[in-house]
Amino acid sequence: MRDLLLATTNPGKIKEVSVILANIPLRLRTPADFGLNLSVVEDSESYAGNAYLKASAYAAATGLPSLADDSGLEVQALGGAPGVHSHRFSPLPSATDHDRCQYLLKQLSAYPRPWKARFICAVLVCGISGELLRAWGECPGEIIPEFRGENGFGYDPIFLLEGQNKTMAELNDFDKNQLSHRARALQSALPALNLFARGII
Amino acid sequence: MRDLLLATTNPGKIKEVSVILANIPLRLRTPADFGLNLSVVEDSESYAGNAYLKASAYAAATGLPSLADDSGLEVQALGGAPGVHSHRFSPLPSATDHDRCQYLLKQLSAYPRPWKARFICAVLVCGISGELLRAWGECPGEIIPEFRGENGFGYDPIFLLEGQNKTMAELNDFDKNQLSHRARALQSALPALNLFARGII
Repeated sequence: MRDLLLATTNPGKIKEVSVILANIPLRLRTPADFGLNLSVVEDSESYAGNAYLKASAYAAATGLPSLADDSGLEVQALGGAPGVHSHRFSPLPSATDHDRCQYLLKQLSAYPRPWKARFICAVLVCGISGELLRAWGECPGEIIPEFRGENGFGYDPIFLLEGQNKTMAELNDFDKNQLSHRARALQSALPALNLFARGII
Repeated sequence: MRDLLLATTNPGKIKEVSVILANIPLRLRTPADFGLNLSVVEDSESYAGNAYLKASAYAAATGLPSLADDSGLEVQALGGAPGVHSHRFSPLPSATDHDRCQYLLKQLSAYPRPWKARFICAVLVCGISGELLRAWGECPGEIIPEFRGENGFGYDPIFLLEGQNKTMAELNDFDKNQLSHRARALQSALPALNLFARGII
């Protein structure tokens, strides 16, 4: 069975990816299996570029094909910001997720609601000689001014999913694995991941 | 509406791709619209590498995001040959499709049937600053020793699709757009192509 390294040390993300890839005959490895925790500078101006930086760094360090993702929140009224800078979107030097949400809400307060927004995710697999597959997922919704739900992280508590009366932080694991931008990116990668598992790509 | 250049001068391929992408709000352009017919050397050792060479060459020449594919036939008894060399698989200097089929059948005559095989296709879109999406498709089947059907090209007349009593050359356009390796690669690229059409990637 072929190995695939999940190029993340985030336990929640490892669990989420493991569940979505459960039916693909791959042996999923984690950086902890190799005592690794690389500090990758994610300074690309695109989601796919940042996912590539992570996946290729872990592939080089382990010799194993590695899967990474990068995602961001794009708010229409802010011209798509914070986008690829979502994780660093705050003037505070050591901002928490809650700080970043508060900062976003402050920026939005000058604009009329609804504050339309979307999460975007790029997923990439790199082998040691380069990229093997790339997939995309999107989750549309809007930003709301109150915090709802305890699951997830980042902007999840203030992101209301389109067509659901739930924020991303109110979704249970099962629903999140169907609806989230990362789940949708991984789902659209499943045909290619099946080829990968069988050694075809 | 965003432009997408189909990086091929093969009229059959242009038609096939146009039908599969019919519901995506994109203005499909062809090299003929620009009086272009680039001679791209496809010397990569991977399908995705060759698709990248074509897509990036047309993107550089036109400034437009460009879609290219590369495909090959992999025969199990021959260890995956002709694979990425499918188009050049013949000792004859100016071999026709029929010559290549005959040459393949001669190679296979030493092996017991069934001669299991698969077509593989990589589809790639490149913008002027690099790759935007990559998708994969596969069509399983077997090589048969007689020529059947008039459609398609290459190895299509001697490739019997798994689960169908038809060769690739016996499929009508509608079935080919569901079942072929290229159709499957394009179908798995549809979510990403929708994001592309809306300017998100």
